[in-house]
Amino acid sequence: MNITLREIKKSDSKQLLKLITELAKFEKLKPPSLSAQKRLINDIFKKNSNLKVLVAESQKGLIAYAFYFFTYSSFLAQPTLYLEDIYISSEYQKCGIGTCIFKELLNIAKQYKCGRIEFIVLKWNKNAIKFYKKFNAMELKDWKFFRINI
Amino acid sequence: MNITLREIKKSDSKQLLKLITELAKFEKLKPPSLSAQKRLINDIFKKNSNLKVLVAESQKGLIAYAFYFFTYSSFLAQPTLYLEDIYISSEYQKCGIGTCIFKELLNIAKQYKCGRIEFIVLKWNKNAIKFYKKFNAMELKDWKFFRINI
Repeated sequence: MNITLREIKKSDSKQLLKLITELAKFEKLKPPSLSAQKRLINDIFKKNSNLKVLVAESQKGLIAYAFYFFTYSSFLAQPTLYLEDIYISSEYQKCGIGTCIFKELLNIAKQYKCGRIEFIVLKWNKNAIKFYKKFNAMELKDWKFFRINI
Repeated sequence: MNITLREIKKSDSKQLLKLITELAKFEKLKPPSLSAQKRLINDIFKKNSNLKVLVAESQKGLIAYAFYFFTYSSFLAQPTLYLEDIYISSEYQKCGIGTCIFKELLNIAKQYKCGRIEFIVLKWNKNAIKFYKKFNAMELKDWKFFRINI
């Protein structure tokens, strides 16, 4: 299997939205609405966008993506690579593509002098947790994550 | 008590670092090293910085700060206001300054069309959790927060 990892291009938009919708279905979450899909593509490709998308492509098209951006730790005074989404299309899972993407994210984080990579994972997603632990991911057990919906 | 809320200025740097160090002490965390302090001030004030600091000032100088930046929800396709730190100097706590700052953050989040405000809180910090719940903050109990130190 010949897989290429690369940055997203505008012509990938439709395939990216398909993968995001698949991820939402897998996570049992509400997928982006049609207007959110349009806004998302605009926000990714607008001038000076901070949103980054790494995609994996096979002969059949896009088969995986990682959506990330840089946050910041005030105490470390270093950027953090925040991984918003990572998803490998179901028929391509367990082929090592996730590992390749994760290694590339680690490279990018080092290149940008990040002190950390951070992400949240659904508690029931044991396979994902097992996968992340291979990369020395540690759960922040002393902290609670809060959200205010506006 | 006459308190002004405003954006940080470069001349506030020394006072900001004092407050950050106080917060680290309160949180029983390692405060920023001298080189991190220098980097932090550079990163806040560099051209096109994404880091935002709201400060509260009394006649005596800075008495509180909120350090925030904008992240993004791929599913909502909207920015999120991420609150990295909020701290009110101990002698000024319980005077309503935190409430003023938080209301201002809510205004800013609305102005930037954010879908959410997010932050993490130390589990033992019951007062902070009680405070955030007044603003309808909900703990994301279905998720685990992971970090990889690089």
